[in-house]
Amino acid sequence: MSSSHTKTQIIECHQRIKSFIHRTPILTSQLLNEMIGGELFFKCENFQRMGAFKMRGASHAILNLSKEQQDRGVVTHSSGNFGQAVALSAKTLGVDAYIVMPENAPKVKREAVMDYGAKVCICPSTIEARQNAAQEIVDKQGASFLHPSNDMNVILGNSTAAYELLLDHPELDYIIAPVGGGGLLAGTALAVHNFGKTGSICLGAEPALSDDAFRSLRDGIIHTDTNSGTVADGLRTHLGNINFPIIQKHVSDILLVDENEIIEAMKLIWERLKIIAEASSSVPLGAILKHADMFANKKTAVIISGGNVDLSHLPF
Amino acid sequence: MSSSHTKTQIIECHQRIKSFIHRTPILTSQLLNEMIGGELFFKCENFQRMGAFKMRGASHAILNLSKEQQDRGVVTHSSGNFGQAVALSAKTLGVDAYIVMPENAPKVKREAVMDYGAKVCICPSTIEARQNAAQEIVDKQGASFLHPSNDMNVILGNSTAAYELLLDHPELDYIIAPVGGGGLLAGTALAVHNFGKTGSICLGAEPALSDDAFRSLRDGIIHTDTNSGTVADGLRTHLGNINFPIIQKHVSDILLVDENEIIEAMKLIWERLKIIAEASSSVPLGAILKHADMFANKKTAVIISGGNVDLSHLPF
Repeated sequence: MSSSHTKTQIIECHQRIKSFIHRTPILTSQLLNEMIGGELFFKCENFQRMGAFKMRGASHAILNLSKEQQDRGVVTHSSGNFGQAVALSAKTLGVDAYIVMPENAPKVKREAVMDYGAKVCICPSTIEARQNAAQEIVDKQGASFLHPSNDMNVILGNSTAAYELLLDHPELDYIIAPVGGGGLLAGTALAVHNFGKTGSICLGAEPALSDDAFRSLRDGIIHTDTNSGTVADGLRTHLGNINFPIIQKHVSDILLVDENEIIEAMKLIWERLKIIAEASSSVPLGAILKHADMFANKKTAVIISGGNVDLSHLPF
Repeated sequence: MSSSHTKTQIIECHQRIKSFIHRTPILTSQLLNEMIGGELFFKCENFQRMGAFKMRGASHAILNLSKEQQDRGVVTHSSGNFGQAVALSAKTLGVDAYIVMPENAPKVKREAVMDYGAKVCICPSTIEARQNAAQEIVDKQGASFLHPSNDMNVILGNSTAAYELLLDHPELDYIIAPVGGGGLLAGTALAVHNFGKTGSICLGAEPALSDDAFRSLRDGIIHTDTNSGTVADGLRTHLGNINFPIIQKHVSDILLVDENEIIEAMKLIWERLKIIAEASSSVPLGAILKHADMFANKKTAVIISGGNVDLSHLPF
């Protein structure tokens, strides 16, 4: 895909979804800057509508369906945030939404999906069970399946978070996004490639306990054996055939972060930025603290991907 | 005090402290608005420097000292946030600060004061012990004592939070502040009286478990018997002879909130606004939810007074 084509696609996508999303604030912390010896910028997608960046991709994907497709509804399977994003986007656009959720999804996420008026279908927490349940709804209702991360319209929607960052801070050296399914990282990479200054770098940050994306990038094939034990529960999925080539082309490295480093970073974000960020959103700061030398005297932005946390199950 | 005089004082105070404070954001939540059937505006002083509105009053009080007074240092006793505010303001202005803190003050607050370079003096957690320890420093060092809430310069500094709210939203019907020592409520009341639209109302919100300000307003005398058991630990102090007359004159009512209502409000703020707010800062939303009828179809602002929370001691 030619760069000028993608550039236009991102700008058009941003125009299209603009009225369905918030332009989220970018926060800074003097103390965190002092810890690193560089400048950090936090793009607060936890303040996005429904509490996560997923709103960007979901609304863009639904807006790209034909009127006929929209009339038959949309379906997705999601451990949480993408389900909420589809539910809220669909509600806003007057489209029926069916959300397949694993039985172990956080209560706060299940309730939010129902509050947005979507139909929730609970299934066992295996990827196969989710896919089967979603397929059944596609077959019966003629609903359009929306993949949380391996869909070009979702990726373009996601790219608008980093695009907004670069509109405000074109001088950024690094942008770091967490990587689970790869949809945010691929979108971020496209934005950095097309709108970043010469030499700007897109990095992924991944829990060491669930290092499938790291291994995929290293080996040049998609590893699908994810470990579901990490505290960063939004990152327990693997890359897909649409986002992987983008990540291969435009992501310089994926940094691995240990569980205790994720939790420490999460506490720092809560205590110092005074915001609620998910464990998944704390992985990039964990990576920055682990590799502080790399980010000294640099301007680095982090995408705080979401803030939907079950307060009754905090890791600290 | 004539109204036009106070108006000028607030505007001059704001000009004077401007470069020492953040102009904090005002957040809204569609879901919270729907719960009330009115419009709510949250003035996020948890994003203030050092994490609380106290920065406004402390910096104003120190700026109003003479050069000679500044050279001899400042001292205060504080259960936490005012101590931090004095420490940081003093550091910024090159003034020595001595902070008397009770032995049961949250660890995060004690550490922060020391991080700001102030000298910490730990004393027993009675008001008498604090006063004695502070007096000793005044006598020995010639330091100026700064009261956390019963000082006109502190009250004027505090008034600038509501003043900023009214600059952005002159149409507000209500502004509600939590009441502990009375310094924030008195400042808020002065701002509403001088800059609010005709008929705009300033309210206080207080834990029912520590209802001394409510009783003081009702009985026309300052009740000093506070209960120290409330989860809203920043509000365990009583009114003073400087702020009380202002509260009597310009505060319409003090609404009482039960402990479980404070905790529910705190959870709502964390879950829905995605921000870290102290229990003390959650009392006004608790009052709004309790008296929802009163705020239906109205525009109401809440001062989120601070966000310095010890994450290892959450009430939920």
